[in-house]
Amino acid sequence: MKNPQLILFSIFILLTISTISQCHPLDPLTPQEINKTKLITIQQSHIHSSSNLTFHYVDLEEPDKQQVLEYLSSRKKNGPFPTRQANVVVQANNETYELVIDLVKSSIVSKKPHKGNGYPPFTFNELFRASRLALTYPKFKNSISQRGLNLSEITCLPLTTGWYGESVTRRLVKVTCFYRGSTSNVWARPVEGVSLTIDVEALRVVEYTDRFKARLPKVEGTNFQSPNKPNPVPCYKNKPNIIIQGHEVKWANWEFHAAFDARAGLIISSASVFDNVKKKYRRVLYRGHISETFVPYMDPSPEWYYRTFMDIGEFGFGRSANSLVPLVDCPGDAQYIDGYMAGANGEAQKVEKAICVFESYAGNVAWRHTEVGVPGKLIINGQPEISLVVRMVATVGNYDYILDWEFKKSGSIKVGVSLSGILEMKATNYTNTNQTTNDHNIYGTLVAQNTIANNHDHFLTYYLDLDIDGLNNTFVKAKPTTFRTKTPLTVSPRKSYWRIVRETVKNEEDARIQLGSEPVELLITNPNEKTDVGNIVSYALVTGKPARSLLADDDYPQIRASYTKYQVWMTRYNKTERWAGGFYADRSHGDDGLDIWTRRNLPIVNKDLVLWYTIGFHHSSRQEDFPVMPSLYDGFELRPTNFFERNPLLEL
Amino acid sequence: MKNPQLILFSIFILLTISTISQCHPLDPLTPQEINKTKLITIQQSHIHSSSNLTFHYVDLEEPDKQQVLEYLSSRKKNGPFPTRQANVVVQANNETYELVIDLVKSSIVSKKPHKGNGYPPFTFNELFRASRLALTYPKFKNSISQRGLNLSEITCLPLTTGWYGESVTRRLVKVTCFYRGSTSNVWARPVEGVSLTIDVEALRVVEYTDRFKARLPKVEGTNFQSPNKPNPVPCYKNKPNIIIQGHEVKWANWEFHAAFDARAGLIISSASVFDNVKKKYRRVLYRGHISETFVPYMDPSPEWYYRTFMDIGEFGFGRSANSLVPLVDCPGDAQYIDGYMAGANGEAQKVEKAICVFESYAGNVAWRHTEVGVPGKLIINGQPEISLVVRMVATVGNYDYILDWEFKKSGSIKVGVSLSGILEMKATNYTNTNQTTNDHNIYGTLVAQNTIANNHDHFLTYYLDLDIDGLNNTFVKAKPTTFRTKTPLTVSPRKSYWRIVRETVKNEEDARIQLGSEPVELLITNPNEKTDVGNIVSYALVTGKPARSLLADDDYPQIRASYTKYQVWMTRYNKTERWAGGFYADRSHGDDGLDIWTRRNLPIVNKDLVLWYTIGFHHSSRQEDFPVMPSLYDGFELRPTNFFERNPLLEL
Repeated sequence: MKNPQLILFSIFILLTISTISQCHPLDPLTPQEINKTKLITIQQSHIHSSSNLTFHYVDLEEPDKQQVLEYLSSRKKNGPFPTRQANVVVQANNETYELVIDLVKSSIVSKKPHKGNGYPPFTFNELFRASRLALTYPKFKNSISQRGLNLSEITCLPLTTGWYGESVTRRLVKVTCFYRGSTSNVWARPVEGVSLTIDVEALRVVEYTDRFKARLPKVEGTNFQSPNKPNPVPCYKNKPNIIIQGHEVKWANWEFHAAFDARAGLIISSASVFDNVKKKYRRVLYRGHISETFVPYMDPSPEWYYRTFMDIGEFGFGRSANSLVPLVDCPGDAQYIDGYMAGANGEAQKVEKAICVFESYAGNVAWRHTEVGVPGKLIINGQPEISLVVRMVATVGNYDYILDWEFKKSGSIKVGVSLSGILEMKATNYTNTNQTTNDHNIYGTLVAQNTIANNHDHFLTYYLDLDIDGLNNTFVKAKPTTFRTKTPLTVSPRKSYWRIVRETVKNEEDARIQLGSEPVELLITNPNEKTDVGNIVSYALVTGKPARSLLADDDYPQIRASYTKYQVWMTRYNKTERWAGGFYADRSHGDDGLDIWTRRNLPIVNKDLVLWYTIGFHHSSRQEDFPVMPSLYDGFELRPTNFFERNPLLEL
Repeated sequence: MKNPQLILFSIFILLTISTISQCHPLDPLTPQEINKTKLITIQQSHIHSSSNLTFHYVDLEEPDKQQVLEYLSSRKKNGPFPTRQANVVVQANNETYELVIDLVKSSIVSKKPHKGNGYPPFTFNELFRASRLALTYPKFKNSISQRGLNLSEITCLPLTTGWYGESVTRRLVKVTCFYRGSTSNVWARPVEGVSLTIDVEALRVVEYTDRFKARLPKVEGTNFQSPNKPNPVPCYKNKPNIIIQGHEVKWANWEFHAAFDARAGLIISSASVFDNVKKKYRRVLYRGHISETFVPYMDPSPEWYYRTFMDIGEFGFGRSANSLVPLVDCPGDAQYIDGYMAGANGEAQKVEKAICVFESYAGNVAWRHTEVGVPGKLIINGQPEISLVVRMVATVGNYDYILDWEFKKSGSIKVGVSLSGILEMKATNYTNTNQTTNDHNIYGTLVAQNTIANNHDHFLTYYLDLDIDGLNNTFVKAKPTTFRTKTPLTVSPRKSYWRIVRETVKNEEDARIQLGSEPVELLITNPNEKTDVGNIVSYALVTGKPARSLLADDDYPQIRASYTKYQVWMTRYNKTERWAGGFYADRSHGDDGLDIWTRRNLPIVNKDLVLWYTIGFHHSSRQEDFPVMPSLYDGFELRPTNFFERNPLLEL
């Protein structure tokens, strides 16, 4: 260690960390822990020289689930605190290393090189440097000058490259460039036909093409801005009764843990709902977060075919997180939680206001009834629907993802995503669809003159480690099924009805579900717990609008994201299995992830289970999505189903 | 006319009506017009004696659409006001008569007896008298006494009977009874096994059965009540900028007409959205309302098989409308519109606060984007999502339907329904599911001891007379369809992609759609209007969770509600075709309605079209739905799709 300041700093950290009182075993790494992780990695790993070592992943190594549950159930009795470890992936000299670091013992638990396919997420420095490189590349400067454009008005943006069957790969990004002129909409005016491929490790251009020219779209109409006069937004008369201590949130009948993570973004843990009949908190969700996203564009041309992004694994939603803006991203009375993550150099970076928490009241009715059947009385009762929203916003290049977890007093957890931001657009010489009739190389909508917004999908896959009223659960399909009546017509002239046929899903492969073809209620049950009248305790997965990938099974992007062929999967809990598209998603070959794990086909009856659900959108753009998109929403709900003895809203 | 007061009253009305300035040709009948309709019917129709004549339907006779459109487009120039006529159905001496009354000329335009199948909606008096009759019926009193129950604690409720193939029918209701004891939940304690069939015209019991006894459910746990301390609900700092004049509402970029109707409940008419680029209001929806509901229960036993309700045609959502309760049904700053309808005697009855209108802000984001691609700048822009909700609430017996029309600044109209209220329950001797293993006659969920909530469906079918930017529209299915690439792998290694294949729907039969099996965007286009860049102007129907009837096609309830086999229909506009299950829904035979009309299979390309969409729920009850149900929501959205030149949120 050459830097004496660093030594002093490390002593300071070591002194500090021992005095931090940990609140919850799933608390994300503190800035002190992140910095300590860096220090131990650099000092003890013997991986190359520290100057050349970059940190691509620094996360809490998920502690043993049983230990966490034991601690949480006994924390008031001061049970032993589960060990604090960091999971680290660094890149040095073209090699990837995985480390586990014990933060209590200040030692390296394990260290091994990653020898498989795929690479860790890019650091922002890598992406930034790669996109700046284009501006200094002579052939590119020549292309810009040939087009009569001013280099100082060019913005270049890095895109991940995917994998297309290459047997030898390296860490590459594709760079695509735009002309700003006087627009703040960087994405609106693509310098079409030009493409750079950049080796990120060597920081050099390995491929350059200037294949064709297309008319630059006009500036007019591309700018977007908030109205000058801000919209009046409501305020609460009474301060919402939300208690936030560290990462633990208590509100109404809910308690849960909300953490910020560089890869997943927002992680909700140990969510339990208070049962006012049983007078105790009952477990619902051990851990839930976005696991992977898949955003394939539908243009097979050389400049576009590779755009098949897996944002979580290639970038990270936490790294793309916004510092939330009050009155735009969250209401005026929202409360905020800051986030911390490791930068490329391993040091802790703060993301201020990374998460907001607020009460939401849209004016809806939680329940109501008017009763006129009691003589002489008119009975009207009901409650307004007020829920708690936990939100983060990730901006991954052009797209903005508003990611919500909504907790309802009825016991439901509703998870939703609103897509906004800018479309990915392609410049074209066409100014009207009447010129395009015979052109089969158009793969989107002409949203403005000289501007095609290309068709694409969004698939957001959630990891949902449910523990419905306990660790071991069973997955049940409850199907409304038509039966013909057998009673004589004289007894009942009804000929048909439906009843629920329950089908226990026995193993992981049978739990893969393509939604939409027939009605089914998906229940995550606890076969060991029954209500007083004997119903099996469960939560239902209430799915959204079904969408699954339409790519051919043998197409490379689909091989990498093969899990997107089913909206629902259920696997046995394994703390190493959290990333549906594989841990090393950049340039992955589809040899890790949900589809691969599931081939072992483990039994899943009365086991600790993880539910995976994919929210999907087929996005054929509209002119209304230009120059910035109105939010497009979808989501799903986890709804108590014979979990409570009766409507929990009446007990509050 | 025997009553001199009535003569005086009628003169008063005739004097009054000429001074009323009509605002909108689709304004519902005013109380004066309703009373005038009564008077003309009684004085001029020569239908029996007035004392024995009951009014079952009194509605505005929909004026000629072309005249309405012409008036609305020229109203500032004082164009001629479309004629005001009333559509009346009366019942006298076991006969049904249909009348059209001209309210300007004070004369009967047409009068004819209804000779087909089915009957008009019941009046509340009929239902009330029928249910009271049970309490005086000796055999029933005996059944109650045999069960050791107190007759004064009995509430009897009337249910419609459906049709089960009888060639001769009469106007009947079934009556089922409940024991209140000390509960306000009238539905919780059924006197199971007892059933009365009552001839509504003769007001006598035509069938009585006491087939078996079942344990009366306990009182404990059945009561529901609002919390003693009301929830704090938000207020607006700034008064919402909603302008309501009569039935016309203006807000943000929307103007529309909101009317109350005894049968449909809330009707939205002439909804137009302001286009700030074209500087004019553009038409979206000429008229929209619930057309019919179908709620079949799934228990074929003698006491339950007939419960296959068509609430709109048998009762009416307007007749079941609540006077909305501030802070329960609508937020504190809501504005209200009163409704009027004809009672059984033909006289106007007021429904105070029948409709509420309010701004809704759940804390969501209308659009946002963070841009880091402009050197030296961090650009963050966005707007909160504030929309306008128009609401009514219908309580049809046990169920409460919260019915919303939500207008968004993005140009979308979102239509939603929240189901709440009380489940229909069946008493049973069982107290635990472990006793029911071998009993195949259980058709629901044991939600409490001695209480089974029976399985059922809700289908709410909407009539949507869309006029997308003009009268004539075309229905297009836009299907994302997988293609394999034809380019050599050297050019692009991508193997597949999807593109939109547009399929124009040519005729009414082809427009019937069962959703869910494959992805499709449903577009209502105006082939005569294009955007500046040549896209065909359209709105998309964004559907909810698909559900369609699971009953056998040859089952009688399904024959009556055959339109519930498809979620989407499109028909040619015809002002007489508004009620999907037929106009005379009570005891209908399935020989009127959407399915019948569609068999003519008219061409629908570039015509005035009506879209029909069914929101559906398969409801297998949960214990959480007892004793009162948390709201269960579904809906659909009409979303502009290449209707505007660009995101309209930026123009406001």
